[in-house]
Amino acid sequence: MILAAQQTKIRRKPLKVICSQSDFSANISLASRAVPSRPAHPILGNVLLIAGIERQRLHVRGFDLSLGIETSFIAEVTEGGRVALPAKMLGDIVARLPDGEVAIAHEKTEEDEEEGGIVTLTSRSGSYQLHSLDADEFPELPTIEEGDSVLVPVESFSEGLRATLFATSTEETKQVLTGVHFTLTPESIEFASTDGHRLAIQKIFLGNEDGATIPSQGLEATIPAKSLRELERMLGLRHKEDRVKMSIDEGQAIFELGESLTLTTRKFDGAYPRYRQLLPTQFICQVNVDRRQFQSALERVGVLSAQRNTVRCLLDRDQQQLCLSVESQDIGSGRESMTAQISNEIPTQVVFNLKYLMDVIKSVQSSEIAIHLNSAKQPIVFTPLSGAEVTYLVMPVQVRDLNDG
Amino acid sequence: MILAAQQTKIRRKPLKVICSQSDFSANISLASRAVPSRPAHPILGNVLLIAGIERQRLHVRGFDLSLGIETSFIAEVTEGGRVALPAKMLGDIVARLPDGEVAIAHEKTEEDEEEGGIVTLTSRSGSYQLHSLDADEFPELPTIEEGDSVLVPVESFSEGLRATLFATSTEETKQVLTGVHFTLTPESIEFASTDGHRLAIQKIFLGNEDGATIPSQGLEATIPAKSLRELERMLGLRHKEDRVKMSIDEGQAIFELGESLTLTTRKFDGAYPRYRQLLPTQFICQVNVDRRQFQSALERVGVLSAQRNTVRCLLDRDQQQLCLSVESQDIGSGRESMTAQISNEIPTQVVFNLKYLMDVIKSVQSSEIAIHLNSAKQPIVFTPLSGAEVTYLVMPVQVRDLNDG
Repeated sequence: MILAAQQTKIRRKPLKVICSQSDFSANISLASRAVPSRPAHPILGNVLLIAGIERQRLHVRGFDLSLGIETSFIAEVTEGGRVALPAKMLGDIVARLPDGEVAIAHEKTEEDEEEGGIVTLTSRSGSYQLHSLDADEFPELPTIEEGDSVLVPVESFSEGLRATLFATSTEETKQVLTGVHFTLTPESIEFASTDGHRLAIQKIFLGNEDGATIPSQGLEATIPAKSLRELERMLGLRHKEDRVKMSIDEGQAIFELGESLTLTTRKFDGAYPRYRQLLPTQFICQVNVDRRQFQSALERVGVLSAQRNTVRCLLDRDQQQLCLSVESQDIGSGRESMTAQISNEIPTQVVFNLKYLMDVIKSVQSSEIAIHLNSAKQPIVFTPLSGAEVTYLVMPVQVRDLNDG
Repeated sequence: MILAAQQTKIRRKPLKVICSQSDFSANISLASRAVPSRPAHPILGNVLLIAGIERQRLHVRGFDLSLGIETSFIAEVTEGGRVALPAKMLGDIVARLPDGEVAIAHEKTEEDEEEGGIVTLTSRSGSYQLHSLDADEFPELPTIEEGDSVLVPVESFSEGLRATLFATSTEETKQVLTGVHFTLTPESIEFASTDGHRLAIQKIFLGNEDGATIPSQGLEATIPAKSLRELERMLGLRHKEDRVKMSIDEGQAIFELGESLTLTTRKFDGAYPRYRQLLPTQFICQVNVDRRQFQSALERVGVLSAQRNTVRCLLDRDQQQLCLSVESQDIGSGRESMTAQISNEIPTQVVFNLKYLMDVIKSVQSSEIAIHLNSAKQPIVFTPLSGAEVTYLVMPVQVRDLNDG
């Protein structure tokens, strides 16, 4: 009758798992990206461990009510169950455990004063008892029952994020600009971002085999940059041939990579600017320049630009040369020259915000970059000379008196 | 007569140098370690460049009035001279210049409104004009005319610093404890540091060939840890066979590495504690344990010690086992075991400050560490089981009620 007595004491879902230390540590680390550092409710400072006996997987979930991340990996699950543990503490311990197996065991008696019970982690050399919170308090991740979805190769999706995330706004006053805007059709996804001073657009095309459920007239959604940065980081750990499933409904977007990773995020409400109409339809002048050379010259003259944070770009068609120059009254001045292919009549100088220009140059992946201009006051467009369908627009700085000779 | 007219306008020491970008950048970076981020006087935010035509070297000097660093390297000096330039700005630009030669030219006319004139840096692709301050304002580094000195291999000196710097105090109230105390004889140097709770001592022996001018009865000096940390960093960049010359007089210590590096630092006034008398002369028990195993176990249980910052060390002579354990009421508990050679009758448990224990374990270089104890309340001494002559003393934590079963 000892057995029966024990059974009434111990909870029905005790959770008993043996797993690899490195897998466990990596998965806690991923899920913890969705754990807020100052949680609004204590349970949100935890990760939820879910051991599934059928699929023999251990899931690790973090959720800040806006962004949710659930990862899973193969483990030896003897007893399925759920348990919530402080994310940072758990991560710090598991990361330091020796290579090899870690046993996780949850025990909770009904007489237990603490609601969550005790979780014991056992490794080769030691053991740890951690107080857990009640797993039932941990919120479920949103799911999408009836929504549209599309399958995209990791490589293309990462490209779209890299090309646009940097140009999102950081000012919370215009919330919709702090996200990346997606325009989905069954054949393509257009990523776009703007903070009001600059614009980034990348279009990626989907293969026929992708079996999208997106309506042919298209679907739009603006998704918080904060969530997408986490997605970008996770895609960076994947094979570029893997495919990410993006599903969208009224309030949520969900990104899935097989059964091992799910990222859920809320969408932003509100209309996104009609950005296409900002792009000039034709240009008077095109300048082609080596991207790396341009970037390193910009980094050097940039050191001097602390005061104004602007850089002057001078075009010399006769010499086929582009000069970058910065002047700072207290400190000094700098000037860098490089060869460039300059077509047609041109504005002789354009003033840029240094950061905006640098962001674009860094983001372009091709070896040469094409700069398209009409005048020193109109939008200037940057495109790679070959490769992906990316368009960057930067507004030049309107300077009244530049004090130049 | 144009020449004559120019000569009256241009200063007598114009400075004209061509040097390698990488050498220049590395030397600015080294000297800048002695440039304060918030200089008390504007000139101290600069580095002083000194071009010597005879030895064809460019010197770079930084000085915060307490710590001075002057490095030099071979350069093509056409005109010798001195010029002061903003350290951070100069470093940022030169670090980004392309590989290859950099030309440095200083011009100053008497009619110049600004006192320092203009320095032009020219690289392959661009040129920079920087306003300089008057080089005459830059303070000279202290020199030692009549003092004692000793020559020490870089490797030994670095060992002495590594063994002691960590145990210096960070509290400015007892200034002398924020330094490392040196006891020099012609045959040896003893490095020592203590913050009142722990003590580190390393003795290094000098060869006969070192030609020291230290009096045989010995010489003592306490040198700021801040200066020695910079010295340690610089020694780390040198061949371990190089020899550092340490010179001491009433107010200063100077460390020299050939002609390429000079570090000057003030000494601390005031008597240093008689630390030798803190060391017990005999011990009841010795425990030998694998250092790496001890360190990683300590790192793991340490995660749980946020509350008390203490760790309990349990000794089991019968099992020849050492256990580290941490309990934290809110979070949980952890326990790690490892084999140890435990001699003689022993105190069964000792409580340590986690950080002090960790610092010692990290600092010891041998594969095994010996722990020497008398009781749980008396000083505990750590030594490497073989190798260097290092002694660490840590005071155990006096715990009244540990709430252990």
